[in-house]
Amino acid sequence: MTSHPYLVGLVGQGVGPSLTPALHMAEGRAHGLDYIYRTIDLPTIGVEPERIGEILDWARALGFDALNITHPCKQLVIDHLDALDDAAAALGAVNTVLFEATRTVGHNTDAPGFATGFAQGLPGARTDSVVLIGAGGAGAAVGHALLSIGTDHLTVVDIDDDRATALSTDLAARHPEVRVEASSFDKLSVLLPAADGVVHATPTGMADHPGTPFDIALLHPDLWVADIVYRPLDTALLVAARAAGCRTLDGGGMAVHQASTAFELITGITPDAERMTRHFRALAGSNSPTSSAK
Amino acid sequence: MTSHPYLVGLVGQGVGPSLTPALHMAEGRAHGLDYIYRTIDLPTIGVEPERIGEILDWARALGFDALNITHPCKQLVIDHLDALDDAAAALGAVNTVLFEATRTVGHNTDAPGFATGFAQGLPGARTDSVVLIGAGGAGAAVGHALLSIGTDHLTVVDIDDDRATALSTDLAARHPEVRVEASSFDKLSVLLPAADGVVHATPTGMADHPGTPFDIALLHPDLWVADIVYRPLDTALLVAARAAGCRTLDGGGMAVHQASTAFELITGITPDAERMTRHFRALAGSNSPTSSAK
Repeated sequence: MTSHPYLVGLVGQGVGPSLTPALHMAEGRAHGLDYIYRTIDLPTIGVEPERIGEILDWARALGFDALNITHPCKQLVIDHLDALDDAAAALGAVNTVLFEATRTVGHNTDAPGFATGFAQGLPGARTDSVVLIGAGGAGAAVGHALLSIGTDHLTVVDIDDDRATALSTDLAARHPEVRVEASSFDKLSVLLPAADGVVHATPTGMADHPGTPFDIALLHPDLWVADIVYRPLDTALLVAARAAGCRTLDGGGMAVHQASTAFELITGITPDAERMTRHFRALAGSNSPTSSAK
Repeated sequence: MTSHPYLVGLVGQGVGPSLTPALHMAEGRAHGLDYIYRTIDLPTIGVEPERIGEILDWARALGFDALNITHPCKQLVIDHLDALDDAAAALGAVNTVLFEATRTVGHNTDAPGFATGFAQGLPGARTDSVVLIGAGGAGAAVGHALLSIGTDHLTVVDIDDDRATALSTDLAARHPEVRVEASSFDKLSVLLPAADGVVHATPTGMADHPGTPFDIALLHPDLWVADIVYRPLDTALLVAARAAGCRTLDGGGMAVHQASTAFELITGITPDAERMTRHFRALAGSNSPTSSAK
């Protein structure tokens, strides 16, 4: 084999258990590549997130091709890059850094990852009017993705009203042709009955944040429900949504497609996203469906 | 594949054209390993050799398993290590650093590399009385190796008499049972006729240091001649030695076996040294013999 051996890392806090390294390496091997992907957990190596610039410099010097970047460095890293792709510039957040020959470029594959996962997992779902719950980094990526795939009425809800307003204002400025507004949790009883779908983008439902993000009595069969939580894949929200007759989409699609998009940016090779999805679901130890037909 | 993916680098000056990365990676692949080996050329990355401690810290933090170390860092690195193996301690030089779980350990595989290459390339050669030309880092490794394989009269020659004296004094102190002495180039006409063999350990004969290190009229058929230069493998000295009827050993053996010994330290897997030798000779673009029978 004479192809370039790829060296990639994931920088962030608590990245040790991430499934992304295994996804990248397995896909690399499937293409006959030497492909090594390391986790670089900031607390473990004793480096403050504010030193992300040094991490970039050394990773380039020691021969890395690229880094994935996650919490809490997605914004911090921007000051240390020579250029941003459109998604990263729009989101103000970077999850993939490519060490090109003469410059270091930030990309964001979270938004295209959600869009691709949505298209595959909920084909034909109406997206005219969508409620987005959670206005943090993941919510911002989802919001941009929804507006890119045709949503023309997006309502952003967050327990922090200011955060919801900030995100909706930003999204509205970038998409002046559509209706984007902020609302509050106590309006969900009005919003959800009129919506085509809801995307949940907060940590609720993760192992250490059990529960559902809102009263499941608001679920109705004409609403699709997407969760971005993928640990577990089958959250309490999705269980309740299926019981209520909703079409559902779990967080696996976004998780896989942010990785498959990054893999293609790094290698120039189009990965087999279906294979990556099967691998992800095997790793995640879940036999739950990707999506459930109504 | 679920085995550990190995990440190794070579740190030094002018390491770009090194054949060691290809040797390690090909052998790793032959064992079914993911094995990536990067060159980290100090002038290219703009890092001073004195910052070798930082390089070690970052290489460990970013997930390297080991580093090979070469000029000009073999001595500088020692202050940044938790422990040394016997060869590194004896030589005061490290060419392999292993990042163990809780400590960073320096090894030297140059001396065992020469000894192994010698045993394979000049089997049965008498080593009672040997002349070593060159008292730099490579000469020191060769000197230690010769004393470890039975030489009991070693004469060290260098154009810098003080350097020859320093090495012979050090070797004598570590091997009090044998005769080690320094001499000068103008004594070679007396030394070589009485010696079993001569090892050449200076840059003379490399592409940018053409020529032979001493008057080839001193060669005689009862003398074996070993060169540590391996670019080219077939130096002017070895050509002249074969013409004079000498058994010869080129620098490929030491180059391969320092790498095979390092590979085994890093992976715990015994490499196929014959395969590595064939690969090295293919890469070096030479069909010259490993050694020539008298």
